[in-house]
Amino acid sequence: MLFEEESIKMEIGFLGLGIMGKAMSINLLRHGFKVTVWNRTLSKCDEIVALGASVGETPAAVVKKCKYTIAMLSDPSAALSVVFDKDGVLEHINGKGYVDMSTVDANTSSKISEAIKAKGGYFLEAPVSGSKKPAEDGQLVILAAGEKALYEEALPAFDVLGKKSFFLGEVGNGAKMKLVVNMIMGSMMNAFSEGITLAERSGLSPGTLLDVLDLAAVSNAMFKMKGPAMLQNSYSPAFPLKHQQKDMRLALALGDENAVSMPVAAAANEAFKKARSLGLGDLDFSAVHETSKPLDHSS
Amino acid sequence: MLFEEESIKMEIGFLGLGIMGKAMSINLLRHGFKVTVWNRTLSKCDEIVALGASVGETPAAVVKKCKYTIAMLSDPSAALSVVFDKDGVLEHINGKGYVDMSTVDANTSSKISEAIKAKGGYFLEAPVSGSKKPAEDGQLVILAAGEKALYEEALPAFDVLGKKSFFLGEVGNGAKMKLVVNMIMGSMMNAFSEGITLAERSGLSPGTLLDVLDLAAVSNAMFKMKGPAMLQNSYSPAFPLKHQQKDMRLALALGDENAVSMPVAAAANEAFKKARSLGLGDLDFSAVHETSKPLDHSS
Amino acid sequence: MLFEEESIKMEIGFLGLGIMGKAMSINLLRHGFKVTVWNRTLSKCDEIVALGASVGETPAAVVKKCKYTIAMLSDPSAALSVVFDKDGVLEHINGKGYVDMSTVDANTSSKISEAIKAKGGYFLEAPVSGSKKPAEDGQLVILAAGEKALYEEALPAFDVLGKKSFFLGEVGNGAKMKLVVNMIMGSMMNAFSEGITLAERSGLSPGTLLDVLDLAAVSNAMFKMKGPAMLQNSYSPAFPLKHQQKDMRLALALGDENAVSMPVAAAANEAFKKARSLGLGDLDFSAVHETSKPLDHSS
Amino acid sequence: MLFEEESIKMEIGFLGLGIMGKAMSINLLRHGFKVTVWNRTLSKCDEIVALGASVGETPAAVVKKCKYTIAMLSDPSAALSVVFDKDGVLEHINGKGYVDMSTVDANTSSKISEAIKAKGGYFLEAPVSGSKKPAEDGQLVILAAGEKALYEEALPAFDVLGKKSFFLGEVGNGAKMKLVVNMIMGSMMNAFSEGITLAERSGLSPGTLLDVLDLAAVSNAMFKMKGPAMLQNSYSPAFPLKHQQKDMRLALALGDENAVSMPVAAAANEAFKKARSLGLGDLDFSAVHETSKPLDHSS
Repeated sequence: MLFEEESIKMEIGFLGLGIMGKAMSINLLRHGFKVTVWNRTLSKCDEIVALGASVGETPAAVVKKCKYTIAMLSDPSAALSVVFDKDGVLEHINGKGYVDMSTVDANTSSKISEAIKAKGGYFLEAPVSGSKKPAEDGQLVILAAGEKALYEEALPAFDVLGKKSFFLGEVGNGAKMKLVVNMIMGSMMNAFSEGITLAERSGLSPGTLLDVLDLAAVSNAMFKMKGPAMLQNSYSPAFPLKHQQKDMRLALALGDENAVSMPVAAAANEAFKKARSLGLGDLDFSAVHETSKPLDHSS
Repeated sequence: MLFEEESIKMEIGFLGLGIMGKAMSINLLRHGFKVTVWNRTLSKCDEIVALGASVGETPAAVVKKCKYTIAMLSDPSAALSVVFDKDGVLEHINGKGYVDMSTVDANTSSKISEAIKAKGGYFLEAPVSGSKKPAEDGQLVILAAGEKALYEEALPAFDVLGKKSFFLGEVGNGAKMKLVVNMIMGSMMNAFSEGITLAERSGLSPGTLLDVLDLAAVSNAMFKMKGPAMLQNSYSPAFPLKHQQKDMRLALALGDENAVSMPVAAAANEAFKKARSLGLGDLDFSAVHETSKPLDHSS
Repeated sequence: MLFEEESIKMEIGFLGLGIMGKAMSINLLRHGFKVTVWNRTLSKCDEIVALGASVGETPAAVVKKCKYTIAMLSDPSAALSVVFDKDGVLEHINGKGYVDMSTVDANTSSKISEAIKAKGGYFLEAPVSGSKKPAEDGQLVILAAGEKALYEEALPAFDVLGKKSFFLGEVGNGAKMKLVVNMIMGSMMNAFSEGITLAERSGLSPGTLLDVLDLAAVSNAMFKMKGPAMLQNSYSPAFPLKHQQKDMRLALALGDENAVSMPVAAAANEAFKKARSLGLGDLDFSAVHETSKPLDHSS
Repeated sequence: MLFEEESIKMEIGFLGLGIMGKAMSINLLRHGFKVTVWNRTLSKCDEIVALGASVGETPAAVVKKCKYTIAMLSDPSAALSVVFDKDGVLEHINGKGYVDMSTVDANTSSKISEAIKAKGGYFLEAPVSGSKKPAEDGQLVILAAGEKALYEEALPAFDVLGKKSFFLGEVGNGAKMKLVVNMIMGSMMNAFSEGITLAERSGLSPGTLLDVLDLAAVSNAMFKMKGPAMLQNSYSPAFPLKHQQKDMRLALALGDENAVSMPVAAAANEAFKKARSLGLGDLDFSAVHETSKPLDHSS
């Protein structure tokens, strides 16, 4: 145990009140945690304060006040900024915990980890699988790695935020696990897309294919959620294709480092790149479906 | 309606009492159907007769007695033999229905279909998705195609044999739908296998990967069933790899006919071929996992 | 030696006076062979007769007159027709040789081989590598297989028709060798095409790439002939893409039979299929280059 | 013209007397250039001095004395060291030219380029295609990029060192061009290897395949040089597989940046990675041939 025992739920800091961070901090409050929040645009804190949160003026102020602080920032540059900028996390991190749940690359995570440890703080990376709805429902999957004692300290909070959390060892393993999962997801999306096109072009009803798949051993939530929209050529971005392709690229690079040959993932990655070359990078990653279609002579 | 109305459940013929056929005919009897069975080795009929079935001496005799006859044979040559041999189905098919639920190629199916129609009979192909356990539990998925009126006639039996049946149009579409589903399944297996190897070689626990996948949107029964055995390098054949590879090849050939480019399925097919070249064709199709592994210096 | 020695060049039959056959029969005449020709449209023989050839009224008549007969037909159905039709090759083949230099599939070749042998004749398949220009220049490459003694008998003619001939063993090996060569050619075309697009999109001059390649160890006649036209998006059909894709498919099928995994050829095949789906099947096989290009926003 | 005219051949500096540098500096001397050499191990200069060269004590001393200086170092760290270390190139580069012919990555090249320009010097990257033999024979292919005036200044030397030099525009283009060429080469090697295995497994003589290929439009020096050794499973390293795979990876990354989909190169890259996983990284890149082979039951 890093910290002394407490009979009441401890004060948790929370940095970043975007779509995810807002839902997560509300969940913590609802389950009786005392939460001190900070957001770059401070007015965004008002709604959370109305639900019982305190506000910190700066990341440093939040860290100083709390046993540990959770961050949920939008991207690597925001994640770096709250740590390294003036009035940032580093200023009061000595003896405190910092749990970064943002999705960042391994380099960013290592940089933050080293700086915090050098200042006498404790670090845990904890990227999540799941987006807005699971965040609101406390159904995220949490892929934590780094300081084991801090993971155990944060478990009561993780139990509220997610349906399951994993401790994966050293810093970097959280990000790697997410890449592996997303790589499998990307290859599966291509398998699905090719099957839909094959059905269509072979005179089968693609809608019936979805029904049959749903009864098969390969039935899964992604096919169910994305399939009907794909049949309508509708690719409203839940997870943008360019981000999926970036994750495929990073997973292939991880394989390259470790001499793992992955021909199916490589073929899927090239299809995503083809989709990017067709200008589809900002659509949902299911838009890779367009690459498997023949020329539409009617368009 | 092909046949006159009946107030009682009609007599159904059933040819082939292998693992699948036995389970299916028992289900029909249990649900009150009158069933007349035939099997090449007639002694195999005894158990079914004890449950209330009649026996026909030949396929022709069964067909003559029943409104329609279901066949569940082991392979194309058995399927052809019961139809075309002496005392075969063709002899009394005029005005009767024949439902072939065996898994055969499109050519075999067409040959049987044409011969039966030429003799004045009605034909339905109805391959199934699912093996022994779903057959026993009446949980098959039935992919029917051919004579629509016969499909409707057979629906009460299909409702007993399967959890769902589909009517897919002209003869051949049942086989094609099965190929599309199996192609998606084969690509998914490769995606899964590559992910497991990448996790292992990157210092992550592959067991934890299975747990994480099971909580993700891509969670599916196949990963759950096959994953733990794959981690043990155990590939006891539920669906032999050489058959999965044959289905990938046929699906790719179907794509070739229709000018559908399927790079991910093609890469997956080459991995299955690699597995065959390593002598793994008779193991379960999950043995393709071996192709993604690096050299084991201990062996 | 199948036949008795002769001090003068023997009489050779020649069936088929299309682009290839005409050039080849003229070469034989120029080198002192006595040639008896036949063509479905007999008037096409006139030009060859003017150069010294005799005419046979039917394939049977040609075969009867000559020690051995060469055929150069346009496709499998023509190749079968001259053999099996009334007044065809089979009628007088007993004790004679038949050299089919047409490009046909292995099945057609086997069918002809068996029929000729059953009638007491000798058979050699001898497909060629090279088209009009090499045919005119006597620079074909001849891939012969079947009756070895007939191969040796035909060598003086092969020496006139080609720069090199190979005897490859049993019937079918000629066709297989051609498939292997065309498969390598198809993968190389894709490698070349991808490189051109990568150069263009990376800000390099694709024309300079051609110059650099021409000085490298990979420099080859195909790149030199096709490259400049590809940079102009010009794909005038020397070897139609749909035929190249068919050869890739057959080579992959040959690999499937023999459990040879060929991931690069499989990826190349899918690119050719993509090109077919874009309506490019009748253009030159270098038109696969279109599949590697990004969306042209100007079109 | 950067420099004033001279009626005699100017003094050229030369840094690095490894296998390549030694051959190149000797060629310059033989063609009448005055050359001042430097090597980290100075004793290596003796042989060149015996042929008429002068020696500089440090890179800075060489640069100070000559109009421009050529470097041919073994790797990026050596290339950086001679420029940035004490007594390095930067100390006297103001107004002088620096031609780096080492094979380095784009980052290293940019770093050197910027430092030299910041000090008032002129920079040209000029990686070469070709190894020891072409270096000795003055038959290199030179891929230059950067300062155009310096390229023109160095042309008389390039004419001696290579059979052809190209000016490719801005710094980085030399390295990119080399990647594109090596990517095509790597895909071709896989196409070749797959063809050899297909021939072998289909009952054809792989030696005859080499002969046939040599007469085809795809005939090239690489197939001729590598083929016979590959049939002997002999992969003595001319260009190590791990370096070829690194170039494939970098070429694919270049494609990723520019949204170029390259499925054939991606499949080839995975085969090279497979070869690395089998422990073949230090052999010649033709050792990728091992990945296309089936299990050898005799071993």
